[in-house]
Amino acid sequence: MANLLVDERDVKFVLYEQLDIEQLGNTAKYAEYSRDMYDMVLEQAWKLAESELAPANRKGDLEGCIYEDGSVRVPESYHRAYGMYCQGGWLAMADRVEVGGQGLPVALSLAAIESFGAANWSLIMFPGLTHGAARLVEIFGTKEQRHIFMDKLYSGKWCGTMCLTEPQAGTDVGALRTKAVRNADGTYNISGTKIFISCGEHDLTENIVHMVLARVEGSPLGTKGISIFIVPKKRLENGQLIANDVACGGVEHKLGIHGSPTSVLNFGENNNCIGYLLGEENRGMRIMFQMMNEARLFVGMQGLSHATAAYLAALQFAKERIQGTEVDRMKDPTAPRVAIIKHPNVRRMLMFMKSVSEGLRALLYYVGFCEDMVRSTTDEEEKEKYQDFIDILIPVCKAYGSDMGFRVCETAIQVHGGYGYCQEYPVEQHLRDCKIASIYEGTNGIQALDLVGRKLVIKRGQLFKRLIAETEDFLKWARRDFELREQVALFETAREQLIHVTKYFGLKGMTEDYIETLLYATPYLELFGDVAIGFMLLWQALIAQRRLQEIYVDAGATDTASQKEVLASNRSAAFYRGKVASAEFFITNVLSLSKGKAKAIMSGQRSVVDIPEESFALS
Amino acid sequence: MANLLVDERDVKFVLYEQLDIEQLGNTAKYAEYSRDMYDMVLEQAWKLAESELAPANRKGDLEGCIYEDGSVRVPESYHRAYGMYCQGGWLAMADRVEVGGQGLPVALSLAAIESFGAANWSLIMFPGLTHGAARLVEIFGTKEQRHIFMDKLYSGKWCGTMCLTEPQAGTDVGALRTKAVRNADGTYNISGTKIFISCGEHDLTENIVHMVLARVEGSPLGTKGISIFIVPKKRLENGQLIANDVACGGVEHKLGIHGSPTSVLNFGENNNCIGYLLGEENRGMRIMFQMMNEARLFVGMQGLSHATAAYLAALQFAKERIQGTEVDRMKDPTAPRVAIIKHPNVRRMLMFMKSVSEGLRALLYYVGFCEDMVRSTTDEEEKEKYQDFIDILIPVCKAYGSDMGFRVCETAIQVHGGYGYCQEYPVEQHLRDCKIASIYEGTNGIQALDLVGRKLVIKRGQLFKRLIAETEDFLKWARRDFELREQVALFETAREQLIHVTKYFGLKGMTEDYIETLLYATPYLELFGDVAIGFMLLWQALIAQRRLQEIYVDAGATDTASQKEVLASNRSAAFYRGKVASAEFFITNVLSLSKGKAKAIMSGQRSVVDIPEESFALS
Repeated sequence: MANLLVDERDVKFVLYEQLDIEQLGNTAKYAEYSRDMYDMVLEQAWKLAESELAPANRKGDLEGCIYEDGSVRVPESYHRAYGMYCQGGWLAMADRVEVGGQGLPVALSLAAIESFGAANWSLIMFPGLTHGAARLVEIFGTKEQRHIFMDKLYSGKWCGTMCLTEPQAGTDVGALRTKAVRNADGTYNISGTKIFISCGEHDLTENIVHMVLARVEGSPLGTKGISIFIVPKKRLENGQLIANDVACGGVEHKLGIHGSPTSVLNFGENNNCIGYLLGEENRGMRIMFQMMNEARLFVGMQGLSHATAAYLAALQFAKERIQGTEVDRMKDPTAPRVAIIKHPNVRRMLMFMKSVSEGLRALLYYVGFCEDMVRSTTDEEEKEKYQDFIDILIPVCKAYGSDMGFRVCETAIQVHGGYGYCQEYPVEQHLRDCKIASIYEGTNGIQALDLVGRKLVIKRGQLFKRLIAETEDFLKWARRDFELREQVALFETAREQLIHVTKYFGLKGMTEDYIETLLYATPYLELFGDVAIGFMLLWQALIAQRRLQEIYVDAGATDTASQKEVLASNRSAAFYRGKVASAEFFITNVLSLSKGKAKAIMSGQRSVVDIPEESFALS
Repeated sequence: MANLLVDERDVKFVLYEQLDIEQLGNTAKYAEYSRDMYDMVLEQAWKLAESELAPANRKGDLEGCIYEDGSVRVPESYHRAYGMYCQGGWLAMADRVEVGGQGLPVALSLAAIESFGAANWSLIMFPGLTHGAARLVEIFGTKEQRHIFMDKLYSGKWCGTMCLTEPQAGTDVGALRTKAVRNADGTYNISGTKIFISCGEHDLTENIVHMVLARVEGSPLGTKGISIFIVPKKRLENGQLIANDVACGGVEHKLGIHGSPTSVLNFGENNNCIGYLLGEENRGMRIMFQMMNEARLFVGMQGLSHATAAYLAALQFAKERIQGTEVDRMKDPTAPRVAIIKHPNVRRMLMFMKSVSEGLRALLYYVGFCEDMVRSTTDEEEKEKYQDFIDILIPVCKAYGSDMGFRVCETAIQVHGGYGYCQEYPVEQHLRDCKIASIYEGTNGIQALDLVGRKLVIKRGQLFKRLIAETEDFLKWARRDFELREQVALFETAREQLIHVTKYFGLKGMTEDYIETLLYATPYLELFGDVAIGFMLLWQALIAQRRLQEIYVDAGATDTASQKEVLASNRSAAFYRGKVASAEFFITNVLSLSKGKAKAIMSGQRSVVDIPEESFALS
């Protein structure tokens, strides 16, 4: 069962062989940790995922969340699983020990999250959101706020939420209407309606702490006038928790993530909803943005989690499902029937899923590793460099991760044939659950605009330049590899295309034609993602190729035939060969489209924005 | 409401301006028909889709099919809608009048089916399958069989099914185990289990006529020993319908098409199931193959139907949903809020959906038109030519149609943002319903193998050569267009790439490396689909560009400014401009990848099949 949720060997490959997180031990922050401890954490995470979270997943999907008279019941099976999760300290695993966390590296925590998400995404949304709320209180809260809320959130005793969206204010956050009116005691009276609030109301914990964006009376219009408030479902008065006039108006009936209640929340219907200002007035967007990277990386992890689980399920199915014969005996009805993994077309689908999952895993963990460097290095220049990497890669992690994760789920269904369409198999749920990832935490269209309109532009383009410099350093090493020279060359071409388009955008952005950069932002992000994944896979292949050669040498396997024997009998050799194959596949089949994609982006074709609305269809 | 199901103007554009189905009036078969009559048929179809089929769609999705004690209840709302469908004669609209049909052109019938499918795909699966069964009886049945079954099926009084799949025999049909034992009276005793039988058991009609593949005792192994039988749920004995020992063992719980019962059927559990041989023994596969084109085209239509409905829903949403400002006032909080169709990124998504839907519509109707030519022409050479077009395009219609239809549904959800994920909006159901289309009637992987391993090969490659010759004729005309010269050039390049890869496959297919053609069959089909859709859209754009110029000339609009005015006020002009934009978009953004795709297909990269199974993941 464990191997249906986690590719244990690949997780360790990324952490130890590619990113070498053991090097973090050289920093003061992580000096006490060792690989032994990391391995132990992983084992425990995988055990929890397998034994507690996974069994609650399909049940939660079928039961869903029940709304009745303002209350929401989560699936019955969630209570125990959530309890075990909190008890194990997973909610704050990468947070500082001083605030109740485990102080583990972020990269490692992502490995744990991947397995949790693969087991039960809906369920880990509760602690995921709670963690975001806790971090906000930790960083921006007053001492008293930290005292009341932070521990309860980090321990999972209370859950947290983020309340941004309103009926008229989704992507356009600045249009929100929720009001805050100052009270004499420094608190605020909150009133307004929020929608699409993940985990907005439920019976998993005794209290829920909402982080609510609202406009203080008299504040400016737009995003500049937004403040953020801590608004608990129940507030403390004289040591008692009393209702705080937060009413749940219902939950959405959704395509997926049925175990996660997506709620309508009405604040202050009876004018008795108290909010506590977090930070200063009108700084709400800035404060919220501090959490954006974490939240968006988390959504990218969702794409990876579903991809991993869907891939492994499809792989297992392909190994077990007997259908047809070996290709060279197709016309012989007496030929033995074989598992469908023998069929080239099935293998192609599996390899697509494998290479994408592995590429995403590497990219996401890499961003986690960058965060670890930011947290642990004492070199300010280095800190800024890694922060720049994070900032430019986050929209790619979120959008490309969710889009490609969905593509993997789709392919996993296809491998299953008719069975994939049935609820008996897990892949249709992964497809449904995964779809939300391209929408929430800023739609993928917004991610593309963030990348093109903000991340490429700030600091005079320094973020992109730094990333390109990093790949240049990488290429100096990569170009020396003979075996992978074709892949290296294809990657270089793709990288040049990306640089080329980026410069083109830089120029266009300064002219009347800047609208083209908005029109082609999404294809640009896709190209960026292709190159990023290509980079990760090539990096991995270079390591794997070297290890493979060492194994061959040790085994005295100098010709193709003897190497084939080694591959058949030596598990490590098979693994490393698979890593090389992932790079070969992705680079040959996906990265090779970069020229065409770049050309399209720079085509200047803009009839899409020039035609009248009626041209889309006569109404 | 009607405009949410059908792009009426584009349907008529394809039928009358592109394919010019009025020319069919020159043949004896269609001499009596006119455009007035076609228009009337379309109006009636759209009315039925809107008023009867659509209202039953979400209800059917929520209710699903209920299995109880061997019986299946379809959604309550289906009874009336199905009755109206049959009453209107839609089930046999393109069949000969002599057998009870309406004798209308197939191309026109596809236009009707598109609207029916957009309204309620699950529901029209019943008549769709029934029609296939009826055709089999018409073509291969004895006089008695036609007498008993054909009229009942064509009128929809009884429903029909196709029973191929068994637990161990899905894609590998030849591995089926259902047995037929000859009786003295010429009938057969049938026994065996079939699974995944669409509409296999239900209460919509008093009887269900199953077309069952089975092996007669003593027949050869594999596909050569398969026969096909008419096996009614209730058989006629002495003028009475009595139970024929066909038991439903349950229905699947599926991702989508909830209104369509996917059934397990047990034949002859009590050794009292009588089957009537259709045609001769051991000819079952050949007979079934006669129906394959119709069935696969129907599934391609499913992709189109969902794409159409999803696109139009997204378009309507984009016109109504207010969010954000015009791009040039993004930083101004006082700027008026606009409909999201104003945003370039939303428009790009809409145009993707528009161009793909229109391209698929044209391709599918074109294949219907080819069928009309086959049915009506008296020139044997011409008849063969059109049959060749059909045969080579069918796998593309089925696989590319379903895959791209799904992609359109996915994009439609994205346009809706969070709302798209909720059941209140129709797009999440379209996504779920659409997914099955890439699986049933031969998975899309099988379609690719059919294209590469069969359609490219038979008649010494004549099918492909003929299609290419047709596009060459087209290009002679297209190259003369000045306005669209860039698109024509891009199309030419893509077409050359397709020719190039096809020749490459021809050579590879004759060597030990033929496995590469299997490995890259799916990317090849995708490239083929790109070129086919590009062809259709360019063809349409050339017509539209000409019409647009005529309108400009009539209006005396000679400069850009005055042409813009015409576009804003003249609906026809806006429509034609939209047609040109579809071609511009698809050719620039999709067809432009053909070089990269072709290169990948011909890369010789085959590590996917060379690596050991363990390389996919250590277990």
